[in-house]
Order: sequence, then structure tokens, then C-alpha cells
Amino acid sequence: MTYTAPVREIAFCLDHVVGAGRLARTDRYADATDDARDAILTEAARLCEQVLAPLNIVSDRQGAVLENGVVRTTPGFREAYKAIAEGGWVGISADPEFGGMGLPMTFTTAVNEMMSSACLSLGLCPLLSQGQIEALENHASDEIKALYLPRLISGEWTGTMNLTEPSAGSDVGALRSRAEPDGQGTWRVTGQKIFISWGDHDVAENVVHLVLARLPGAPAGTKGISLFLVPKFIPDENGAPGQANSLRVVSLEHKMGLHGSPTAVMEFDGARGWMIGPENGGMACMFTMMNNARLGVGVQGLGVAEAAYQKALAYARERRQGRTPIGDGNGAIVDHADVRRMLLRMKTLTEAARAICLDTAFSTDMARALSGDEAAAWKARAAFLTPIAKAFGTDVGNEVAYEGVQVHGGMGYIEETGAAQFSRDVRVTAIYEGTNGIQAMDLTGRKMMDGGAAARALLAELRAVDEPTGRLGRAVDALARATDWMLDNQPNDRFAGAVPYLRMWGLTLGAAALVKGAAAASGDDARRRAALADWFLRAELSAVPGLAEAACTGAAPLYALSADDLAA
Amino acid sequence: MTYTAPVREIAFCLDHVVGAGRLARTDRYADATDDARDAILTEAARLCEQVLAPLNIVSDRQGAVLENGVVRTTPGFREAYKAIAEGGWVGISADPEFGGMGLPMTFTTAVNEMMSSACLSLGLCPLLSQGQIEALENHASDEIKALYLPRLISGEWTGTMNLTEPSAGSDVGALRSRAEPDGQGTWRVTGQKIFISWGDHDVAENVVHLVLARLPGAPAGTKGISLFLVPKFIPDENGAPGQANSLRVVSLEHKMGLHGSPTAVMEFDGARGWMIGPENGGMACMFTMMNNARLGVGVQGLGVAEAAYQKALAYARERRQGRTPIGDGNGAIVDHADVRRMLLRMKTLTEAARAICLDTAFSTDMARALSGDEAAAWKARAAFLTPIAKAFGTDVGNEVAYEGVQVHGGMGYIEETGAAQFSRDVRVTAIYEGTNGIQAMDLTGRKMMDGGAAARALLAELRAVDEPTGRLGRAVDALARATDWMLDNQPNDRFAGAVPYLRMWGLTLGAAALVKGAAAASGDDARRRAALADWFLRAELSAVPGLAEAACTGAAPLYALSADDLAA
Repeated sequence: MTYTAPVREIAFCLDHVVGAGRLARTDRYADATDDARDAILTEAARLCEQVLAPLNIVSDRQGAVLENGVVRTTPGFREAYKAIAEGGWVGISADPEFGGMGLPMTFTTAVNEMMSSACLSLGLCPLLSQGQIEALENHASDEIKALYLPRLISGEWTGTMNLTEPSAGSDVGALRSRAEPDGQGTWRVTGQKIFISWGDHDVAENVVHLVLARLPGAPAGTKGISLFLVPKFIPDENGAPGQANSLRVVSLEHKMGLHGSPTAVMEFDGARGWMIGPENGGMACMFTMMNNARLGVGVQGLGVAEAAYQKALAYARERRQGRTPIGDGNGAIVDHADVRRMLLRMKTLTEAARAICLDTAFSTDMARALSGDEAAAWKARAAFLTPIAKAFGTDVGNEVAYEGVQVHGGMGYIEETGAAQFSRDVRVTAIYEGTNGIQAMDLTGRKMMDGGAAARALLAELRAVDEPTGRLGRAVDALARATDWMLDNQPNDRFAGAVPYLRMWGLTLGAAALVKGAAAASGDDARRRAALADWFLRAELSAVPGLAEAACTGAAPLYALSADDLAA
Repeated sequence: MTYTAPVREIAFCLDHVVGAGRLARTDRYADATDDARDAILTEAARLCEQVLAPLNIVSDRQGAVLENGVVRTTPGFREAYKAIAEGGWVGISADPEFGGMGLPMTFTTAVNEMMSSACLSLGLCPLLSQGQIEALENHASDEIKALYLPRLISGEWTGTMNLTEPSAGSDVGALRSRAEPDGQGTWRVTGQKIFISWGDHDVAENVVHLVLARLPGAPAGTKGISLFLVPKFIPDENGAPGQANSLRVVSLEHKMGLHGSPTAVMEFDGARGWMIGPENGGMACMFTMMNNARLGVGVQGLGVAEAAYQKALAYARERRQGRTPIGDGNGAIVDHADVRRMLLRMKTLTEAARAICLDTAFSTDMARALSGDEAAAWKARAAFLTPIAKAFGTDVGNEVAYEGVQVHGGMGYIEETGAAQFSRDVRVTAIYEGTNGIQAMDLTGRKMMDGGAAARALLAELRAVDEPTGRLGRAVDALARATDWMLDNQPNDRFAGAVPYLRMWGLTLGAAALVKGAAAASGDDARRRAALADWFLRAELSAVPGLAEAACTGAAPLYALSADDLAA
């Protein structure tokens, strides 16, 4: 079974669900025509199907290893990464001044889905570079931009983000790495960072770390954090990798999955760094990269969901067991009701997640392409959708991969089948880049500090979707009530129900997307999409009112028990 | 972090939720006193905590291997298995005539939970023997019983079940292995069987296979299947393992988890077998073993849930991140609302699953201890509960293990932590012994062929539980309506919603158990249990009405799409 990039489905979602055609009517993205999009999707599909996908199972079995201080990646990764870089896929949305294509994030997101489907481990490498490119474009000096951006965009060099330390995970503000001025206008960065994806490797000639650290005497917490660019090799006068910097990989983690992605413990020992953004203003700069990466990680979940679905469907169409209830009774297991239920669940959740991820990217693009109040509204929309795209996208990735194993029955548990690998690989996406719990807290906290404006604007969009059975309307009503409840209650009460609240958004936005798709389709495709939407509304969206109860329970029932009570 | 057997919680559940004290008032189980139970739980707890639990992580890293045709298991398994055998834990419920303790399955189930928590891979071995013992007790000749039962009960020999073949998984009736009479009153069994758990090993001196095969000219399907006992070594005149039988392990599977349990492809090449039960009546005999094993597998899910919960709670009480919203703000992450939500979810789902599993075992025991209509009613109750115990128990195992990884954040994805192992190990429990989809079809099909009598008797029990907020009553109403719907509709319409329907039962029975426990507790424990029940009713039971919609959707929406439509 091989991966087939869902080019037609992505294009349909862009055209008829997201309405991404509006991009080409802006000045900034006038080049983002249908032709450009189709060319990009087709080319990227070829790369993902032919070059990346065959490496996926290899990456699981021959993961990255640290040998004598040097990281060696999966055989074939070097060549495949080179193909990604030379195809220009790192810099689709990067600034043309430095070699990027200047195309919308919407296109990048579509390509990232395919790369994540084909080989999650390898696809993570350019994803991190993309985030770093965006951070540097927005916050770096002209000198740094001129030196680093062309090489990151071309893929000659790759980027990482160094936030986490052993005592500073979700609480980034607790980090202890420090940076001291060296009298040459640069800084010496010292500290240990953990969970650094693609922290070192052999697929490109240099690795550029963005590292959060504290200046001497900096305030405590997130207000005392600065951001530094710390290259593995310090560029020489020609911009080529020169002297080795004072940093090293201490070890690589032994993970549940994603073996092809080297996850490093990094030691910075007075490594030379260049400050990005203002002193003590590092968090804001890093958030540029993190927001980009959050959407990227949601898309990773989506990508694995699509791949797991394709694999399960192929198996279910081939495998014969028992008398099937339709046709001549000799059908494959896809004809058994419960197998079909699982496949429909996988398919519809995947389409729901795709619509949300592409819509998030599209909103980011519109915010950039427009100005004034229009831009602000799109920006708020993107900000509100980002934690939903990340958490719902990766929850869907995990759920669909789980069902994919289940469709395979006993074969699903055997590693050679490949279904289990999807499940193991995608597991981390619900954790890294801010756990899905953190995303839900972001949604109900920071993203509702506008008094609910962004939420209500989205609710109004949802109400405008025509769905005659009333199922969608009922979910939107429940969501609106839960939103009011959140706005009326204190942060910790919101946090207590944040995860089910975010799930309500994911399901309702996803349902609306399926309904819109069905309405926009024509001919036999309209029948097919109407059936998908109908099933999703009955079998999945029906969870929303129950989730509203869980979302609006408040913190009191949680704290009616002490930690000791939980251990009793 | 080490495993602590929840002896007090299990005893509470038996006493106050299940009402297992009734067993000691029957003639058959007069020995099943509280003292006997406490002695067993305490002894088993010691074994599981001290001997089995330390081997769990070893079993993952140094799993079973096949070397020169011989299976070698995890270092330490041989000694630990010997401790299980010598403790008498294989035969707690076996016939005293052959060395068993003759105690209720309720006790066995409690002990099996602990073994599954401590080391799922090793615990599976005696679990299979238990099922085989029950099958032989019910269906074997006196000669076979006298020869095999003492050795299986003592643990000197172990048992397996050989059903699955490459083309016969869920559809057992498709199996092709054959058996031909050899003129000596025995049969020669030939065929390949796959997914044979503990199919060979080095922890005991003989392996006794129960193998399904066809006689020459047998009818097609399940009506033409006979059951054979096929020992690895044919007992000599003294009952000691003698000549090697014509069977071998072809290979061991490379699985997602459960590495310590050797999963064998078995080749029988004219192996000598003894028929168990009547010709062509093998399925009924095997069902004795399968029903036993189905409950046992549900308990495996429960056991992993308990262990994963303990591990996550210990981490959450230790790990500090960010300002916590209660106390002095310097608490551990257990004080963050979303972490506490995950832990409460884990805790309550585990208690719900435990109550259902123990209640199922108890019903089986009561059916055996009583007679006439009373016995029939308990038997029907056990039969109805069995697929719920299996599927809900293992779904809970998977969900709780998933949340356990999540509570650990990034550390959860690192194998050294051990949280990921729970998730990988427990994954198979939702698949083997009949996938959870098959269980749901059994519930809505075979288990409702009594016109709904067993379901309605349970609904009446649920209605009798006093729950003043009305939340439980609302769930029971939804469940009753869905039950009526199932009874009014055709099999394939039932199957289309069988999985959500079974989930409704699991949540509602679990909620009732939590409510009953809270009502029966006293003092501070009553407050604690009331808070657990309250949270579960708000946050988890609230899903039931939505599930009812998914359960009663019928097959039409599924078949509105063809297999080609799903691939479009």
C-alpha cells in the first residue's frame, strides 16, 4: 500500500470550503492563482509519494543514532531532504527577497499535510525551518536576515527551536539557560535544552538554533527571556559554515515513535549567539515561530490521519472475512457495518481537521494581505483557530490512527503492517508545541481576552451555514451557550472545561465544513459529500451537547478532591 | 514509581458495589469468606508488587525471542512464573478434585487485575491456562481431565488457544486446519495457526494447545469445527512430558507492545491430538474458554488502567510547573485544573471498569452456585455483561493509558518513563479475543436474542439506584430507548450503532457503580466517593444521550456510501 496525495480533495477544500480563491484577489498574493496552486500540489504530491513515503517505515526501524557525538539519520533521509530543499518546499511562503516563493501559508499548509502523511519524521525538519524563517523575517536584523534567510530558505541549513529545559516545559518562564555579553556585540549562551527536534543531523551542512535564555539580572518569568540565534557552525566571511560553536548533542531520546526525527538533549557551553529582537523580549519573537509551528503540528496530525485512513481503507477493501450484509455476501470487510463505521469516522474526522487547518492558514494569509480592521479581524480569527487546529488536528490524528489499527484487527498490532507506526508516530503531536491541554487553556484564556469577539464572529459564520435538519444549529447553540459561560466565569473554571470546550469547536467547525462542502459539490460528488456530512452530524456532532455539560462544569468538582483523595 | 495493588479498593468494590458477600452464603462458595478473600488479595498483592512489577519494563526491552526453534522469554519470567504457579494463582477457581482452590471467579478476577497491572505480558500466560482449565473441566473426558488438569492447575504446564488462521480471524468458521483419525483413537492435526499467545516458551515444561480443526467431510462454517487437545510433548505413561509432538513455532510476531508475551505462528504437521467434546461441536467447547478469556481480557484493560493511573498520579504529584491555582501556588501539576481533570477521568473510568468486570465474574459465580430460574437469570446477566466487560474494560485501558502519557507531557513519549509502554501493551486488548467491534455485535445480536430480557433486567437494576440529581436517570432513559430501538430493528442496523450502544452501557453501569459506592461509604470516604461520582456524572456520563443518537442511526447512512465513494 502506498500513499496517494489527496490533491483533488485538498483543492476542493480550498475552493469550496475555505474559499481560498480570495487570496489571489489580494495584492500580496496575486500570484496565488489556481494554476500556481495546482502546479505546487501536483509537484509536492509527486515528491511525497515517490521519495518520502517509501522512507517512512525505514525511519521507524533505522532511526536517528548518536555515534561519537555525531547524529546519523535514517538511510535515504539525506537525499530525500535534498529533494525537499531543491524543490523549494521549505520556502513556499518565505520572502522572495531571500529566495522564497512568497506564496500564502495556505499553500505551505497543504504541502505540509502531504509531507506529514508521507514521512512524519522527515517532514518535521523543514517544518521547523519554516517557523524559524518566519521568526527571523519578523524579528531579526537586516544583517542576520541577509546571512541566514537565504540558506534556511534554500534548505542548505535547517532551523530548530530550543525552549524546553528539564524544569521548564509548559512553564517556559522557569528556564535557566543564560546569556552573557562577550564584548563583541554577541552573547555567550550556556545551558541545557531538552526535547530539541532535529537538534543535530547529517541532512544539511549547518543547524541554526533559536535559543531562549536569560541575560544577567533579567526579571523572573517570561518577561526576562531573550532569544538568541546560535549556529552549530559559525558562518565565515563568505557565509559558509566555519568554526564549530561551543555546543553539542548530549544524547538522543528513545521515543515511542518518530524514530527518524532526532530528539536531542543539547548542551550550550558559552556558545556564541546573536540576539534576535529586544532584550527580555524573546518570548514575543519565539511566539511567531510557535504559532507557525502550532499550525504545522496540527497539520502533522491531519497528515497522519489521512495516511492512516488510506492504509485502513485499502486493507478493508482487500481483506475478506465472513458474509457481508450487502451485495452477494462475498464482499470485503469494508462492507461490514462496523468496519464501515470506523472508516467513515476516520474519513470525516480527517476532512474536518483538514478544513480547520487550511482555514487557519488562510486566515493568517488574509491578515497579512489586508490592512486595518479587516486585517485585524482575520488576525483574531487566525489566533482563535490556531489552538483548535493544533489540538483538534492532533487529537484527530491520534484517534484516526487508533481506528486504523483497529480496522486491521490482529494485523494492526504487528509492526510490519505499518498501522501501528502511525499510531506511535502521531502520539507526540498531542504533546509537543504545547500539549493539547495547554492549547485548550490558550483558547479559553488568552484567545477570549477580546471579550469573546473572535468567538462570536465565528459563531455568526457557523449560524450562516444552511443545514436543514437542525443538527448543526443545535450544536452551534450549545457552543454559543458554552462560550457565554466561559466569558462569565473565572480562568480556572474555564480551564477545568477547556478540553471539552475546544473539542466542541473542532466538531462544530468540522461539521460546518462538511455541510458547506456538500452544498458546493455537484453531481455524484454532491451525493457522496452529503452522505459524509449526514453521517458525521448523526454520529459525531451529536456529542456536542454532552461536551457542553463537561465544558461548563467549573473547577469546583475537580477541587472537591485533594491530591491525597486521588491517591486514596 | 512502583505498583501498589489496590487491595482496599477492590475489597470495597466487592463488598459495597457488587455485593459479592452473597457468594459465601451459597453452598458452592461457602469457603469464599471475607477472610479467605483478604488472604488471597494480600498474598497476590505481594507477589504482583514484588515479583511481577519489576519485570514489566524488562519484558518490553528483552521480549521473547525465537532461537533455533526454541522460544526464550524475558530474563526473570521463568522464576516469576514459578512463583505464580506455586502460589496457586492459576487455579484459584479450578476444581479442588484436581488441585484447584474451588473459589469464585470473582476472586480470580481480582487477582488477574493485579497481575495485569504488574506485568501484562507475563500475566497473560496463566490467564490462558485458566480458560483452558475451564474448557477441559466442562468438556473433556475423565481420562483427559485426570491427566491434564492437575498439571495445568499446578502451573507445571500451560495452556493456549489456537483459533486464528491467516484467512480465519473474526470469521473463525473459515478455518482450514484439518484432523484425521489415526486408528488409535486419536487424531492427526495439520494446519497453520497464527497469533498464538504464549504458543511456546521456556517458563514451564509443557504447552497444551487447544486447536480448532475440521474432520474429513465436516460441514462448512462453524458447524463443522472440532476441538483437539494437542500437547507440545505427549505425556508418557507416568504423565511426564514424553515424545515431542509434530508441531513447531514458525516465527514470533514483532508487535507494537506486549513484547514479553511470545505471539507465535504455529505449524501443526500431523500432530497427535485428542478430541475434546463431540465431533463438529468444537465451537461450543471453545466458547467456554473464550467467554472466560473475554472477561480476562477486559480485566487486562482494567489492570493497565490502574497501573497507568498510579504512575501518572505519582508523576503529577511530584512534577512542578507554573503557579498552581490553589494553595500557596507552589503545588505540583496535580493542582492544575486540566491535569486534575485527566486524573479524575483516569480514576473514575478505572473504577467503572473494575465494577463491571467484578460484577461479570460475580454473575458467573452466582449462576454456578444457584440453580433453576435463579441460575438462569444470573447466567443471562453474565452473558450480557461479558462483551461489555471485554470491550469497555479494554477501551478504558487504552483511554487511560493514553491520558497517562499525556499527564507526563514530553516525558510520556520517552520510553524510559514507562507510560508509553502501558499504551503500547494494552493496545492489543481491544483487538484480541474478538475485537471490540465484534463484542458490540455480540451484545446487540446474540445477547439480545432473548427478546431483551437480560437488558431490561439490568435496566431495572439501574433504575433502582438512587441518584437525586437525575443525571443517572437521564442516562438510563436514553439507554432504555436505545435498547428498544435495537430490539425493533434488524441485525445490521443494530451493528451499525453497536459500538456506541455498548459504550452507553459501560458509562451507565460505571456511573451507577460509582453512585452506589458513594452511598455505601462512610465518613470522609463517603465525601471522596461522592465527589468522584459527581464528577463522572457531569463530565463522562453526560456523553450518553449523544451516544444514543449515534447508536440509533441505523445502517442506511453507512451504506449511502459505497467502498468506491470512500476512496474518492
